[in-house]
Amino acid sequence: MFTLTKTDGSARLGLFSTPHGAVETPVFMNVATQAAIKGGLSALDLQAVGCQIVLCNTYHLHLRPGEDTVAKLGGLHGFMGWDRPMLTDSGGFQVFSLSKFRKITEEGVAFASHLDGRRIFLTPEGAAEIQLKLGADIFMALDECVGNPAPYDYVKRSAERTARWLERTALYLGGTRPGGPVCFGINQGGVYGDLRVDNMKRIAELNMPGYAVGGLAVGEEIPVMYHVLDVVTEHMPVDRPRYLMWVGTPENILEAVARGIDFFDCVMPARNARHGHLYTWRGRINLLNERYKEDCRPVDETCPCPLCKTHSRAYLRHLFKAGEILALRLGVLHNLTFYNTLMGRIRESLENGTFQALRTQYAGVLDGRAAV
Amino acid sequence: MFTLTKTDGSARLGLFSTPHGAVETPVFMNVATQAAIKGGLSALDLQAVGCQIVLCNTYHLHLRPGEDTVAKLGGLHGFMGWDRPMLTDSGGFQVFSLSKFRKITEEGVAFASHLDGRRIFLTPEGAAEIQLKLGADIFMALDECVGNPAPYDYVKRSAERTARWLERTALYLGGTRPGGPVCFGINQGGVYGDLRVDNMKRIAELNMPGYAVGGLAVGEEIPVMYHVLDVVTEHMPVDRPRYLMWVGTPENILEAVARGIDFFDCVMPARNARHGHLYTWRGRINLLNERYKEDCRPVDETCPCPLCKTHSRAYLRHLFKAGEILALRLGVLHNLTFYNTLMGRIRESLENGTFQALRTQYAGVLDGRAAV
Repeated sequence: MFTLTKTDGSARLGLFSTPHGAVETPVFMNVATQAAIKGGLSALDLQAVGCQIVLCNTYHLHLRPGEDTVAKLGGLHGFMGWDRPMLTDSGGFQVFSLSKFRKITEEGVAFASHLDGRRIFLTPEGAAEIQLKLGADIFMALDECVGNPAPYDYVKRSAERTARWLERTALYLGGTRPGGPVCFGINQGGVYGDLRVDNMKRIAELNMPGYAVGGLAVGEEIPVMYHVLDVVTEHMPVDRPRYLMWVGTPENILEAVARGIDFFDCVMPARNARHGHLYTWRGRINLLNERYKEDCRPVDETCPCPLCKTHSRAYLRHLFKAGEILALRLGVLHNLTFYNTLMGRIRESLENGTFQALRTQYAGVLDGRAAV
Repeated sequence: MFTLTKTDGSARLGLFSTPHGAVETPVFMNVATQAAIKGGLSALDLQAVGCQIVLCNTYHLHLRPGEDTVAKLGGLHGFMGWDRPMLTDSGGFQVFSLSKFRKITEEGVAFASHLDGRRIFLTPEGAAEIQLKLGADIFMALDECVGNPAPYDYVKRSAERTARWLERTALYLGGTRPGGPVCFGINQGGVYGDLRVDNMKRIAELNMPGYAVGGLAVGEEIPVMYHVLDVVTEHMPVDRPRYLMWVGTPENILEAVARGIDFFDCVMPARNARHGHLYTWRGRINLLNERYKEDCRPVDETCPCPLCKTHSRAYLRHLFKAGEILALRLGVLHNLTFYNTLMGRIRESLENGTFQALRTQYAGVLDGRAAV
C-alpha cells in the first residue's frame, strides 16, 4: 500500500495507494473542514490548485449534517464532488479545542457541541464507525491531543490511554480489508522523548497502515517540535507513511520532510490568505500594505494560480479593502497552489537528489517577509 | 453600432458593437459593483456563466480605489481581467441611495462618501470624465433617480434638470469617437406618463448612442412600471438600444423585452443566491428549507452551471447551514447562469419567432415558488 521509491538522508519519496487512487508523498493535505474549503473553493478548484488529497473533519461533519446524511448522499466523495483520495480526522482534536465542556474517561470522551450544547459521547469505536460512514479513504484513530506545555505525569497517563484507545480501534476494525479504507494510529507523548518513544514502540506493534505524530504544533517551540520528530521517527515503521498533524509553515514542512515525514495538513495557508498574507518564493507579503496599492505585478511571477495568471497585487489589495469575498477566494487559491507546488518541488528534488539543496536554498526565506 | 436583426411585436433582437466586442440583445448585464461579483466570482467565472457584458459602479470605484488608480492599472478591463464589453453607471443612483448627505443644485450633486464622510461634488462633466478614466465601453450620463412615489412637481423639475445635465454631458463629450466608448442618456419622469414622454422627446434630440429608462423599480407597483414602459418606449429611437435600469425578476425581464427593452441589470440574482434563493425553470426554491436536507438532485436538472453539474441540493444546503462562503459562490454562479441562460432563450425565441410562446409558458412560473 505504501511504496518507498527513494530516500535522501531521512527524507522519503513514496507512493500511497487508496481506494480513490494513489498519493505521491511527501504530500500536503488540503483542509476542507466542513466538506468545503474556506474561502469558497469547491472540489473542482482543488484539482486546479494541484491538491492530491483532501482532509475533512469528523467533529464538524458529525455535528452537521451528520454522518448518516453524508452516507445517504454518497459519502464525503459524492457529497462534495471529490473523486480522489480523502482523509478524515477522528474529531479528537476539535473535541479538545472547540467544545465547551469535555470529560475524558477510559471509555471515551463526553463533550458538548459548540453549535448547540448537545451532549455527545465519543468512543474510539464510535469515532471509527462515524468515519467509515463518512467514507474517507484514510481515517484516524481517536486520540487525546494535549496542549504543550503539560505535566509529565498527565501526558504519560494520556498517551497510555490513547494507546489503549488505538488498541480498541484496531480490535473493533478487525484488520484491514484489501482495497478498503485504512486507519492510521496517532503517536502522543507531548514534548517528552521517552514518552514519545514508549508510545511509538507500543502502537507500532499494532501494525497499522500508517502512523501520525499528534500533539505537536500545539504550543511548543519549533526546535522542540523538530527534536521530538528526530527522536520519534527513528521508532516509526519505515514501511508505513508518517503523518505530522497540523504542520505547518513552508519551512516547517521542509524540515519535517528532512526528518522523514510523508503527510502534512494545516489550516495556515488558507487562514493566512484570508488575512491578506500571501506566499511567494521570496517570502510572505501582506497585501493590505499601502505599497501594493498600484503594484501591477502578480503576487508571484512564477505561480500558475488564477490570481497570479490574471490579476495584479493592486487588484487583490482592492478586493480586500473593498471587503469582496473574491479576495478570500483568490488568496486561498494562491496559497494552496503555493503549498501544493512546494510539495511538488520537494518530491522532484527527492527524485533527482537535490532535496538538501532545496532545503538550504529556502531556509530563512519562505517563512519570512518578502523584500518585494 | 446597434443593429436590429429581428422584431416580434415590440420585442427586439439586436447586436450592439463596443470597443471590446459585440453584445447580443436582449442582454442581462452581470453586476460587478466594486470590480468584482458578489459571492466571490472573478472575470474568469463570468465567462463560464455566459456573461456578455459586465456593469461596474462609478460611485464605489471613485471612492475606492479611485479612477486614477484604475486607469494606471489598465482601466477596469485590465484591473479586473475582463476583456469583453463593460458598462459603468454614472454614480447617480448610489449618491441618492447610499450617501449620508446630498445636496442637488443645477451645477451637480454634493454628497458625503458612505465610507468616510468625505465631501464630494459630482457634476455631469465630472461623472463622464471619471467613467472615461475607468475605461468602460458604455457609460451613463449623470441623472437624479427619484424614488417612487414622488410629487409631480418635484419629478418634473428633477427630470428637466436631468435633461439639462445630459445636454451638458453631450456638449462636454463633443460627439462620439468612432470605435470609442459611448455614453447613454437616461430618461426620467417617475410614474407620470406626460413627464416621461416630454423628457424622452427632449433627450432623443441629442442623438445619444443609447437610452436608458431610469427611476423605475424604485418603489412603484409592477403594473405601473410596465405602463411607463408602454408609454415611453414609443418615443425612444428605434435604432438605439434601450436599457431598463435595475430590473428585475425573470418575469419582469420577459415583460420588458415584450415592451422593446434590450439591456437589463439587477443585483437580484446575486443577492437572492446569497440568501439561499435559487432559480429553477419551475420557480424559485429556498435551499435553507429542511425539505432539501437529503435531496440528492441538482438545483435544476437542465442547468449547465458548476453547482448543478457537480453538487446536490443537500450539499448546497449544508454549505449554507455551515456558513461556508462556497455556498454564496455556488449559488451566485447558478443564479447568474440562470439569468444569462434566460436571456439566451429569449434571443433564441426572437430568432425563431417563438418569443410570445416563451413569455406565456413562463408567466406566473419563474417568479413563483417551485413545487419541487
